[in-house]
Amino acid sequence: MSKPVLVVGSGPAGLSAAHALAEAGQEVVLVEKEDKLGGAPILSGYARLVPSREWAKEAIGGMVDRVEQHPLITTHVNTTVEKFDGEPGAFTATLKDGTDVKSGAAILCTGFTHFDSVNKPEWGFGTYEDVVTTTQVEQMFSSGAGVKCPSDGREPERVAILLCVGSRDRQIGREWCSKICCTVSANIAMEIREALPNSKVYIYYMDIRTFGLYEGAYYWESQEEHKVKYIKARIAEVTSDGKRLIVKGEDTLVKRPIMIPFDMVVHAVGMDPNVDNMTLSAIFGVDLEKYGFIQKASAYAQMSGTSRPGVFIAGAAAGPETIDDSIAQGQSAAMAALSLVNTGTKQAAE
Amino acid sequence: MSKPVLVVGSGPAGLSAAHALAEAGQEVVLVEKEDKLGGAPILSGYARLVPSREWAKEAIGGMVDRVEQHPLITTHVNTTVEKFDGEPGAFTATLKDGTDVKSGAAILCTGFTHFDSVNKPEWGFGTYEDVVTTTQVEQMFSSGAGVKCPSDGREPERVAILLCVGSRDRQIGREWCSKICCTVSANIAMEIREALPNSKVYIYYMDIRTFGLYEGAYYWESQEEHKVKYIKARIAEVTSDGKRLIVKGEDTLVKRPIMIPFDMVVHAVGMDPNVDNMTLSAIFGVDLEKYGFIQKASAYAQMSGTSRPGVFIAGAAAGPETIDDSIAQGQSAAMAALSLVNTGTKQAAE
Repeated sequence: MSKPVLVVGSGPAGLSAAHALAEAGQEVVLVEKEDKLGGAPILSGYARLVPSREWAKEAIGGMVDRVEQHPLITTHVNTTVEKFDGEPGAFTATLKDGTDVKSGAAILCTGFTHFDSVNKPEWGFGTYEDVVTTTQVEQMFSSGAGVKCPSDGREPERVAILLCVGSRDRQIGREWCSKICCTVSANIAMEIREALPNSKVYIYYMDIRTFGLYEGAYYWESQEEHKVKYIKARIAEVTSDGKRLIVKGEDTLVKRPIMIPFDMVVHAVGMDPNVDNMTLSAIFGVDLEKYGFIQKASAYAQMSGTSRPGVFIAGAAAGPETIDDSIAQGQSAAMAALSLVNTGTKQAAE
Repeated sequence: MSKPVLVVGSGPAGLSAAHALAEAGQEVVLVEKEDKLGGAPILSGYARLVPSREWAKEAIGGMVDRVEQHPLITTHVNTTVEKFDGEPGAFTATLKDGTDVKSGAAILCTGFTHFDSVNKPEWGFGTYEDVVTTTQVEQMFSSGAGVKCPSDGREPERVAILLCVGSRDRQIGREWCSKICCTVSANIAMEIREALPNSKVYIYYMDIRTFGLYEGAYYWESQEEHKVKYIKARIAEVTSDGKRLIVKGEDTLVKRPIMIPFDMVVHAVGMDPNVDNMTLSAIFGVDLEKYGFIQKASAYAQMSGTSRPGVFIAGAAAGPETIDDSIAQGQSAAMAALSLVNTGTKQAAE
């Protein structure tokens, strides 16, 4: 029997990697720093997911269940890897409580950190109660509370969703695009329009990046079926006239200043590198890329590789990623790890 | 020993799926309709790939080599599956020459068809020799011939790349976005600027969709390091003044008609559903989605599924896809197929 594979992090990528390995008969040790499995979709309370429109607590919750129930997967929550030594086929990870875990390979599925909107203060978050984030709107849906203005509990009549908050913004050191916020925002806009049929929802954008088949299902459907409006604009600031929020900026198509009142403004927050990446880089001996995500191997022949042999990566740890691609990458990294530990076992048997 | 897994198509997804399965000890039968393996990157002669910047003939060629050399993979080229019967764990595929192939599961990696630019006649392809496609420019690089105007062999001084040719275009029944053309075009623009330092390269776009980390490596790098210019425009037509090509349209940012002369115009052609999809749908009994791509299962728990149990899917067969995601999906589908055939074997042994 080959040594277990260590999977670090239990969001969609980690759950997918662990399950795939276990289904292939491979023992897995899964380490999660939070007190429960599921990653961002569960811990942050996402609602209906792109693109399956399943509820996060069912879709990702189901992935949690099958991992928790699998006899070949041992789970450690509320802990982190403090030390990681050895070489491919023979690693030792030391957990916070001193436990040593032997593994043949490791897969980092350590995800991202949501951009904190207080770092974009001119857009009103932290100043005005009714400026919220996409994550907060997800929570309004997933909790069943419904979409309400936090200041007074009223249902908003006019909602603005501002894209690229913490993305494509060099002023605040975040040059990258967070890949999925355009599509998630179109999804949220449609959900709001369904829940509040009298509301008007506007999306402020630089470029609409509903790539691939999302174009029909989100970009066009949000406009044609749900009457969501798109405004290409540079936002200057979000203020208040005492009664309503005011979004000020320039409509970049008509080159005119615009000042439009809203009841609620939603920041489509981007994906930052996981705040733990510096620590993870030091402990696992893996390089980071220039923004602070974990550096992926650049060659197609070793898609899931990092700079350290035997340490693989999947999902948003390596850069902004969608849930479905994270799941596919989790399985992809599982295959790479499996191949490594099987080769090791074969060699040992010879 | 479980029955082999049938993999149909040998582009990046199929090569990846076949190799992953074989590395996990699973027998594979790979069927390719063309006379050699490699799919679009090899058959269409792609040059340097996004995002690894490896040469296609090395990166994908290397994947071909390891598949051809693997003792657990049997390859049939120049043939197709004509009949596919049975159920999960016990399928029989009949090839064109009458050979029956038994398999426990099948993975469709049947890819896409490049949009044919003659279907967008007002943009000059087929009328003017110096209107070419991104695929043709890739071939100019990969063949070593260099970028030359087909009409007279001169090196172009002014090059326009038109995005969304056969994508996001309802007039010609192609509503979807082809996901990777923006980034591929930025890549090609940089390659042209490197090969011809005196050239000027313009990219005409609706939205720039260099999502995720492509934003820095392609969108910004092409502008800042390589002086590629981006023009947000609606193209009306491509004509000629007898000496040069003229791109006519409207600059949608300044709302002004523009007529700009070029030596070469490049169509960034999109991804159509594989022209064989109707046939594949009938033979394999899998549903197509509304545009004609093969319908994926919509639930995260069965990411690689189709409408038919035991028949999985990976890559651009299910919609426009990048090479790296196709590779990851190939491995993901391999994991799903492996799990199925192993379960079948376990049950049979019990």
